[in-house]
Amino acid sequence: MSIFDNPDEYYMQQALREARAAFDEGEIPVGAVIVGNGSIIARAHNNTERLQDVTAHAEMLAFTAATNFLGAKYLTDCTLYVTLEPCPMCAGAAGWTQIGRIVYGASDPKRGFSRLGREMLHPKTTVEGGLMKEECEELLKRFFQQKRQ
Amino acid sequence: MSIFDNPDEYYMQQALREARAAFDEGEIPVGAVIVGNGSIIARAHNNTERLQDVTAHAEMLAFTAATNFLGAKYLTDCTLYVTLEPCPMCAGAAGWTQIGRIVYGASDPKRGFSRLGREMLHPKTTVEGGLMKEECEELLKRFFQQKRQ
Repeated sequence: MSIFDNPDEYYMQQALREARAAFDEGEIPVGAVIVGNGSIIARAHNNTERLQDVTAHAEMLAFTAATNFLGAKYLTDCTLYVTLEPCPMCAGAAGWTQIGRIVYGASDPKRGFSRLGREMLHPKTTVEGGLMKEECEELLKRFFQQKRQ
Repeated sequence: MSIFDNPDEYYMQQALREARAAFDEGEIPVGAVIVGNGSIIARAHNNTERLQDVTAHAEMLAFTAATNFLGAKYLTDCTLYVTLEPCPMCAGAAGWTQIGRIVYGASDPKRGFSRLGREMLHPKTTVEGGLMKEECEELLKRFFQQKRQ
């Protein structure tokens, strides 16, 4: 998959790479990248086990890294690609960053932000869900199946 | 004010001390402490300007510090004292920590979590608002008045 054929899928592949790295480390496999001005400015995966910090979600780490990289507080013209629908914490953080666009893979009907509406996001942020959702879901399913064994 | 007279007010005073430190540094004056087993295990204030990180709210920093201090992922038996009603990001984070109790000072009708319900918290978390709200509000008002000058 080249970036020229389908940039969204290319970037979601990169988020999936991060999710696979989380899987290999025994972390719930969620990965994220943030793209600004045509390049990846942050990549991160869930790190809650390693850091023993329940707030260390892929998105939170990526927001901090991206704003740090830009030396700016806002991510107005950036896109977040994340393999799982953000939770309310991460959606609230996305709201504070004023990120322009969120693209996620698998839905999270139980813990995703969207069951609470989208008021915690910035009004200008656009959201698309379901990109490459089979791959994103499959990795999560495999992780939890393994855990149960 | 001694800790023996009114522990809640004592701890909120400590959160206010943190908020005043934020004020002195030109940060929106919000402070937090987390109390576990009768002692303060984390104290923090808003650091969004210094860190240029919109996720660096007092509560987020305090959650990370407290779980780090305990070497545990959950804050089940702890109380968060915070001078301003948490936003959805911080309430979502509180949900992940499963914190036992949240006590806040000033309400935040525009950006507080409670306008979206309390589903982002853990079902067992109890919440009390309005403790020493005049002092908490006064500091915020003074900050924004100064900014406008």
